[in-house]
Amino acid sequence: MSGNSIGTILRLTTFGESHGIAIGGILDGVPPKIPISKKEIQKELNKRCPDYRGGGRASARETAIRVAAGAIAKKYLSQKYNLKITGFLKQIGNIKCNTIDLNQVKKNKLFCPDIHCLPKIINFINNLKKKGDSIGAKIGILIENVPAGLGEPIFDKLDAELAHSLMSINAVKGIEIGDGFKCITQYGSASYDEITPKGFKNNHAGGILGGISTGQNILISLAIKPTSSINIPIKTINTNGDCTIIQTRGRHDPCIGIRAVPVSEAMTALTLMDHDLRNKAQCK
Amino acid sequence: MSGNSIGTILRLTTFGESHGIAIGGILDGVPPKIPISKKEIQKELNKRCPDYRGGGRASARETAIRVAAGAIAKKYLSQKYNLKITGFLKQIGNIKCNTIDLNQVKKNKLFCPDIHCLPKIINFINNLKKKGDSIGAKIGILIENVPAGLGEPIFDKLDAELAHSLMSINAVKGIEIGDGFKCITQYGSASYDEITPKGFKNNHAGGILGGISTGQNILISLAIKPTSSINIPIKTINTNGDCTIIQTRGRHDPCIGIRAVPVSEAMTALTLMDHDLRNKAQCK
Repeated sequence: MSGNSIGTILRLTTFGESHGIAIGGILDGVPPKIPISKKEIQKELNKRCPDYRGGGRASARETAIRVAAGAIAKKYLSQKYNLKITGFLKQIGNIKCNTIDLNQVKKNKLFCPDIHCLPKIINFINNLKKKGDSIGAKIGILIENVPAGLGEPIFDKLDAELAHSLMSINAVKGIEIGDGFKCITQYGSASYDEITPKGFKNNHAGGILGGISTGQNILISLAIKPTSSINIPIKTINTNGDCTIIQTRGRHDPCIGIRAVPVSEAMTALTLMDHDLRNKAQCK
Repeated sequence: MSGNSIGTILRLTTFGESHGIAIGGILDGVPPKIPISKKEIQKELNKRCPDYRGGGRASARETAIRVAAGAIAKKYLSQKYNLKITGFLKQIGNIKCNTIDLNQVKKNKLFCPDIHCLPKIINFINNLKKKGDSIGAKIGILIENVPAGLGEPIFDKLDAELAHSLMSINAVKGIEIGDGFKCITQYGSASYDEITPKGFKNNHAGGILGGISTGQNILISLAIKPTSSINIPIKTINTNGDCTIIQTRGRHDPCIGIRAVPVSEAMTALTLMDHDLRNKAQCK
């Protein structure tokens, strides 16, 4: 089992598994003199708390370490650039958040940006809990105050490395940068990002062009699948290859898309900080 | 400028830029005794030929090297597992390929799997050429005869590394594994991949579960944006920050989504071969 590290200069390595003795990690490459308290890290951890269970090393429990490490990266980026990463729920099942009000996101535990949608979502989740079922979700990530120039032009494009780190989160099955799959039906003449003397006029590319940040906001969407470990009995086979029924017991999230929000923010922060250090090492 | 290498045991490093003297690369970590001829590599290169131009190191010209290296990875995977990677056009603008016939893909230069769509697409592209405009596209990648067990459970999940290598291709703005963004509205009870004594009953997850290949076909979709370098004059600014008009001259693809198909196949092959070598190094 390898591949337990991510990042080039800023490198996170994690260990441990669910139902094991402990989980932990080492965040290597952190420059000195970043003031951060245990309280600041715990604040981030609380966002994905309480813990959820799973199957050994690949369990999502490991993501707690990512959130703790991400808290340090967030602090670094905030201090240096006032950079701000906000993850939020865009859609859960068929309920779409039509209003994206980032001030609302912090006010509820579902990271919902639409105050009118919130009661509907709470009701929907409570019903799912009763049924023992699960549902998919769409997460948005908005990154503000991004410095221009982060990223590399070939394999380590900023979007490629963000895709890697975000798809390494359990249950992520899709990623879009900027307009994403909307690009399929777009014409070049209508959907380019025009530069004016006052800056970019629009942001179809999502703040990354040719693998390098443009200084615009970075916009990312993630597709999160419903967990397969549900309380409803489903068909499967046993180790002899014979038909049987499985019913997962214990507390499980009806929508892991919610808890994936702080984890997505953490992975985004780690990748951006790594690229900022890479940029500094080579260009400044 | 770094980040010019990709892969762990099988590692491709490229150099050069468009309008420069040469482009090239080194594929390090190839095991001995893979019989491959120059002709076999040229055959793959011809799929993305003729070359297209662009801006220096980040130009898509560099992808020629990826295709050449990918030919070696394809041969290795084909010899060892009879593994087959087929990239194809799923959609271009509003024209969707409704029939996916992989035998058709090889018979036309547009990698179109739907014989009924082909004349429509050719007509559409010819019109775009006349107008000097460009359009986005959706690419599908189907991987058959995949061994179970490739991938790592944490950061180097097979889907995460495929996302990295595929999003490092110019103009890719979105990636889906299996059902991708369809997961958002799916219930856990209805969209899990049931295992029967005869194998998996369905393939919502796209052949990768918990970051590890299941032995099923791997299914990937990519969103490709329209090129911004078009023959239609568009507004921009000059280096003094004043308003001006730019019109890209020379031959440019109205839909780079087509040429991105062989490049996607190559990057997929390189990532799969790398994970096969990693698996062999540690598990066999």
